[in-house]
Amino acid sequence: MDTINLSQKFALIQDYWNPRIAGELNDSYIKLVKLKGEFVWHQHEQEDELFLVVKGHLLIKLRDRDIHLNEGEFAIIPKGIEHLPIAEEEVQVLLLEPKTTVNTGDVQNERTVAGDQWI
Amino acid sequence: MDTINLSQKFALIQDYWNPRIAGELNDSYIKLVKLKGEFVWHQHEQEDELFLVVKGHLLIKLRDRDIHLNEGEFAIIPKGIEHLPIAEEEVQVLLLEPKTTVNTGDVQNERTVAGDQWI
Repeated sequence: MDTINLSQKFALIQDYWNPRIAGELNDSYIKLVKLKGEFVWHQHEQEDELFLVVKGHLLIKLRDRDIHLNEGEFAIIPKGIEHLPIAEEEVQVLLLEPKTTVNTGDVQNERTVAGDQWI
Repeated sequence: MDTINLSQKFALIQDYWNPRIAGELNDSYIKLVKLKGEFVWHQHEQEDELFLVVKGHLLIKLRDRDIHLNEGEFAIIPKGIEHLPIAEEEVQVLLLEPKTTVNTGDVQNERTVAGDQWI
């Protein structure tokens, strides 16, 4: 039941595409991640995923359209929907997703991280 | 999969203590609420609840201590913990909670709202 300050937590993150857990509730984690560059196309078969942009701008490409998120905006990607996050410049993102979620979803590659690191 | 802009949504809310649903994922809702004044002591028997302050300052009294949340800060109140939100001035709060959550938890009174209004 600590107070979590988003700016202070993001200041501790020095790498990209490596989500850190900042809180847990019910069966989900609140994760904080810095993104820069292009990720990989993937989907989460069982988990809906929320992206809330805390700072910067995030493009989430879907197969049929683009979602643009600026600071103070969020979108929810439903399970089973392929998506590709792209950050032209560094962006700070708060994620909310079930504890079972793997960052690369159905794809296993060098971008896959364990995803259980607290910050 | 719309882009939800928090400022635009909060601008539509003209009352206090009446959470509106701004998104759903997995078994949870993202709710937006404006608070001003003092609520009622209550607890949620089954649901952990996240409070993220988007604008303003929120005090959440617990039985044994106080939690202060400023803009860009969040706290998670675990199920079964009595809490009393107090907002000296208007505060904009993003809530994340299971769909089953009632705003007044185990208390039923004139502050209880149905809680299924989308915005």
